[in-house]
Amino acid sequence: MKPGRPTPMDRALAAAREAAAAGDVPVGAVLLGPDGQLLAVAGNAVERLCDPTAHAEILVLREGARRLGTPRLFGCDLYVTLEPCPMCAGAIALARIRRLYFGAEDPKAGAVVNGARLFDLPTCHHRPEVYGGIGERASADLLKAFFQQRRD
Amino acid sequence: MKPGRPTPMDRALAAAREAAAAGDVPVGAVLLGPDGQLLAVAGNAVERLCDPTAHAEILVLREGARRLGTPRLFGCDLYVTLEPCPMCAGAIALARIRRLYFGAEDPKAGAVVNGARLFDLPTCHHRPEVYGGIGERASADLLKAFFQQRRD
Repeated sequence: MKPGRPTPMDRALAAAREAAAAGDVPVGAVLLGPDGQLLAVAGNAVERLCDPTAHAEILVLREGARRLGTPRLFGCDLYVTLEPCPMCAGAIALARIRRLYFGAEDPKAGAVVNGARLFDLPTCHHRPEVYGGIGERASADLLKAFFQQRRD
Repeated sequence: MKPGRPTPMDRALAAAREAAAAGDVPVGAVLLGPDGQLLAVAGNAVERLCDPTAHAEILVLREGARRLGTPRLFGCDLYVTLEPCPMCAGAIALARIRRLYFGAEDPKAGAVVNGARLFDLPTCHHRPEVYGGIGERASADLLKAFFQQRRD
């Protein structure tokens, strides 16, 4: 990675910021293909799209599948600013994602290292490699600022 | 319900049959609005739409939200021929579905009465009323025939 070039998590954080600016909870995701190519970038868009399933992860999985022409994203890596919820962790397993990198942990709604810990269940048919804590501080600060502003 | 008029689960089973005829795993879902009006019917379309998230439940939740103009489907009831997987159970909680009626249990991939039992976790913020075993035999027979045919 050249100095100054945004990392995948930088791009995911930028998408999270754009989501917040549009009134959506600031979470962002990036999907890379098997050769490291950028397949999709999205921010959470539940409110903007009026779609309860429009979390950032779901949006990049759908776009990646469309671009690759297959619903099974073998060899693809997902970066997301927050620990995925049960819906998204389930979708990540269904889509056969190779590696999952996430930012802040989500003790309230996460399902990877908190809550259901879906990938650790014997019923989970595909478990990605999981790397947490990437860009954790920036992600947590974004969420904190967003909810603080809503309460003010 | 008048005699001869299809029940919501009859419609979900018909959508499951159409999915199988198109090469997708036969699961179907129906979403009813707060007044019992039919909001959406869909069959699993992962292969047809080339979308790893295109389970029947996800498709009817998205369509229902679009039709009602809100991502929170308060008072809506979901009928699905098979016990929802983690992705779909998570989406059902996020969408604030009132009642979930499902057909066959899915010991391998279900997340309601099997596996993660998502709605029973303390981290689950919304738990629908759950009624299993509706049209169970018809649903299980469809799935069995589909996978049998694929093995032949």
